[in-house]
Amino acid sequence: MKTLQLNSKTKQELLGNLLNRNPGSYTQYEQTVNEIIENVRINGDKALFDYTLKFDKCELDASKVTVTRQEIEDAYAKLSPDFIEVMKKSADNIRVFHEKQKRNSWIETKEDGSILGQRILPIEISGVYVPGGKAAYPSSVLMNVVPAKVAGVERIIMCTPPQADGSVNPGTLVAADIAGVDEVYKVGGAQAIAAMAFGTESIPKVDKITGPGNIFVALAKKACFGHVSIDSIAGPSEILVLADDTARARYVAADLLSQAEHDELASAILVTTSQKLADEVSNEIEELLKTLSRADIIRKSLENYGYIFVADTMEDAIDAANAVASEHLEIITSNPFEVMTKIKNAGAIFLGEYSSEPLGDYFAGPNHILPTNRTARFFSPLNVDDFMKKSSIIAYSREALEKVHKDIELFAKEESLTAHANSIAVRFEK
Amino acid sequence: MKTLQLNSKTKQELLGNLLNRNPGSYTQYEQTVNEIIENVRINGDKALFDYTLKFDKCELDASKVTVTRQEIEDAYAKLSPDFIEVMKKSADNIRVFHEKQKRNSWIETKEDGSILGQRILPIEISGVYVPGGKAAYPSSVLMNVVPAKVAGVERIIMCTPPQADGSVNPGTLVAADIAGVDEVYKVGGAQAIAAMAFGTESIPKVDKITGPGNIFVALAKKACFGHVSIDSIAGPSEILVLADDTARARYVAADLLSQAEHDELASAILVTTSQKLADEVSNEIEELLKTLSRADIIRKSLENYGYIFVADTMEDAIDAANAVASEHLEIITSNPFEVMTKIKNAGAIFLGEYSSEPLGDYFAGPNHILPTNRTARFFSPLNVDDFMKKSSIIAYSREALEKVHKDIELFAKEESLTAHANSIAVRFEK
Repeated sequence: MKTLQLNSKTKQELLGNLLNRNPGSYTQYEQTVNEIIENVRINGDKALFDYTLKFDKCELDASKVTVTRQEIEDAYAKLSPDFIEVMKKSADNIRVFHEKQKRNSWIETKEDGSILGQRILPIEISGVYVPGGKAAYPSSVLMNVVPAKVAGVERIIMCTPPQADGSVNPGTLVAADIAGVDEVYKVGGAQAIAAMAFGTESIPKVDKITGPGNIFVALAKKACFGHVSIDSIAGPSEILVLADDTARARYVAADLLSQAEHDELASAILVTTSQKLADEVSNEIEELLKTLSRADIIRKSLENYGYIFVADTMEDAIDAANAVASEHLEIITSNPFEVMTKIKNAGAIFLGEYSSEPLGDYFAGPNHILPTNRTARFFSPLNVDDFMKKSSIIAYSREALEKVHKDIELFAKEESLTAHANSIAVRFEK
Repeated sequence: MKTLQLNSKTKQELLGNLLNRNPGSYTQYEQTVNEIIENVRINGDKALFDYTLKFDKCELDASKVTVTRQEIEDAYAKLSPDFIEVMKKSADNIRVFHEKQKRNSWIETKEDGSILGQRILPIEISGVYVPGGKAAYPSSVLMNVVPAKVAGVERIIMCTPPQADGSVNPGTLVAADIAGVDEVYKVGGAQAIAAMAFGTESIPKVDKITGPGNIFVALAKKACFGHVSIDSIAGPSEILVLADDTARARYVAADLLSQAEHDELASAILVTTSQKLADEVSNEIEELLKTLSRADIIRKSLENYGYIFVADTMEDAIDAANAVASEHLEIITSNPFEVMTKIKNAGAIFLGEYSSEPLGDYFAGPNHILPTNRTARFFSPLNVDDFMKKSSIIAYSREALEKVHKDIELFAKEESLTAHANSIAVRFEK
């Protein structure tokens, strides 16, 4: 893991290197994805089942595409009772946190009879995508589904690719059941996204698609944006730890490693004002790596996207953290809340030495689906708002409209929209 | 204008016809747009100025691309004082309404030392696109910029195409000044979107791009989504009027015409339980059309996308309104608020016979940038949230983490993420 002095040059190199993980163009995949979407749009279930045979080696038909209640019960039987219990506790915490995000519709009335307001309602149907194989994380199922449930979405469906024998990861199924998914379909890839965006005979058209996936899934979501709403496009995982000389090197090292294990594109960055901590963290990383099962992945991601920066001042360190806009930001300093006030961009902020990042991944309640790749400058953690929509309310009495009708007519005429002006004027013609 | 009985067959035909306004694929334009984006990304200002010469016939350089204070003063001098006054009143109303959308950050503390919360901050820099020529609506400038200002965005920039002589629509400039735009750049089209998404020597990279535009602008926004945040993709304008036999035909007719005048793809739909009203509205439309300057456009849009539906019951009428999910929905019935409770999907809802749609376009305060093309099922009017981002806050004491550390470790191990489990475990090792 590189240890560098933080300055404007090394900061620029860091930012460039992180952005390079995300190629600007995926032209080679886009055509394939567009073909899949068109095929599903036109041929519905038939296209879905053809792709499932081709990509997942699983033969499906309309009678087999939906996971049955028995399959869900079987999935429960395959998991340890302790794990099921922990998932339920985690779901409860996620529910409690997201309940606090709910908002009320509001109106404002005036005595002249005018009423303005904002109505907030849940979307009617949402779809979550869950990858198959090793990327099937039950925790992500909870994080995707519970906010939709809290929002009041009536019908929540899930698509996930089957194994060749038609089975689905039991952790996925149990998490879906705990979180309140209404139907699970055995379909994966870009074809699943297209099915949820446009509907097929078996799979209903949804209003919003969330959930992670490979490059084909990500491109399909982007291509369907506008036909449906989507969450933000997830990139490789990231952690940035801001620490001063009060931080314990072993904790910092363990937290950096926890993100680096995700995959070889993951990034783990320490920015510290203490050279001593930098050196100790470097050593602790080597120590800890000896014991970790995913050490090979970790070594590669640290080599490519792992950094220890020593900063002259905490201000410089904070500037770097704001520039990186990390998905996860830990602040382990003598005054973490004071440092937080200067943080502009971060997906989730973990304060103090006992707020290790996996606490947020699994348990505390805030969402672990977070903006990556510097998009925390403008994107947010997945939240209840993502499953709600607003409508404006406008009600004017004759008295209220009469006071302003000439202003409105003038504005409309200035824009040469005479029928607009007329629709006000007819209400006051003699 | 067609008058049809509302039933499941005519409803399906309506929905199909409306969706046909929005072709599924724009392959022929996508390549051009992608080339423009790549060129601007690589060559910056040079590419911008080349395109501006090619498309706008205007020769620019870095010294001429930014609108000067003098140009803004000159624009004020070109407008009538009354119009300037109305724009200021409108901006005030928009500000007051959007102020009510602002939200507080919040935290929740527990006595074991745990703190969870949600921090809400404005994005740092936003960019608004304003079309040139006849589509340059000062009201849209106000609607795009004021919410960003209310959100607390530090720097708001605008791009709009110049005329061949380098001038910019004075209404656009004055509206920008009233709303609080910091800099206006004379750049249009997909190249303006690319410049704001990636930055050039003259134009800063922004966090969010909003504003309408032609197909090249819309495709460029979609292509840049993820590198920046964008607003939803605007389609042709729409109005749906829900009316019973208490509605005045002349008002209903005038309101339908006000949307139909936007362009030939605009849609105006009346759904009523009264055959008598249907007939009268039909007649009033013919009457009013004789007096309107944009009658040619109106006739074409009514012919293609104008409908009068007679429904058996108000319930059927409401179902149709929910299926269309109209950008603008007027409810002109004896009990408009009661009808509203059954409305699930609409961009803005206008209640009662004095709440004519242009009141919302120009003056009342709610945003006129609204979801179109049935996307009100999941998109919202432009609002202050669009210019803010959230960060989760997680702070656990040792005591709080100790109570749950085994649960977290178990969950992480079940997902085979052992370094995640370890980052919790190291905090409790002997």
